[in-house]
Amino acid sequence: MDRLVHPDLKDVSLAAALHALADPVRLEIVSRLVACPCLNASTACTDGTPKSTISNHLNVLRAAGLVETRIEGRERINRLRCVDFDARFPGLLATVLANKA
Amino acid sequence: MDRLVHPDLKDVSLAAALHALADPVRLEIVSRLVACPCLNASTACTDGTPKSTISNHLNVLRAAGLVETRIEGRERINRLRCVDFDARFPGLLATVLANKA
Repeated sequence: MDRLVHPDLKDVSLAAALHALADPVRLEIVSRLVACPCLNASTACTDGTPKSTISNHLNVLRAAGLVETRIEGRERINRLRCVDFDARFPGLLATVLANKA
Repeated sequence: MDRLVHPDLKDVSLAAALHALADPVRLEIVSRLVACPCLNASTACTDGTPKSTISNHLNVLRAAGLVETRIEGRERINRLRCVDFDARFPGLLATVLANKA
């Protein structure tokens, strides 16, 4: 499976988007990506969660159209697809993040 | 287990609230409860989903503080806990429902 497929947001359902956000580790990753737009799997979450676990969470976020991953050398750099996601689900990410605080 | 326990919203995490909403059938139930504030398991969803499935979804919504269920005679009547939920997660339910349309 190509794990770096980035879906068209029109193919992402609201339920799938909410599912991607419905996890404390993924919420933390998304928050970190807001604060620091380019993170690899090691820096996306630093609370001792295994890198493989973070990678799996990033896969879920990518499949929901929340994260774009690009390969730079030996790194995978992740950023939020804020504009795409907000165009598809207006206000949703901002409201979720406001409620995470 | 008492299936009619209604949690204090302060004990509901954002991830749990999002999980409760991250299902197309539960989103449909919540929408119907907005349109018609008092529904039993038979009327909460009329697309042929088995009543037992609806009851399970209502349990998830109740555990997330989204639904209050009271027993009236032989019926269980459900309503949204809009005020409680919005006090805990401002704007979240409205944003989710706006994106469901």
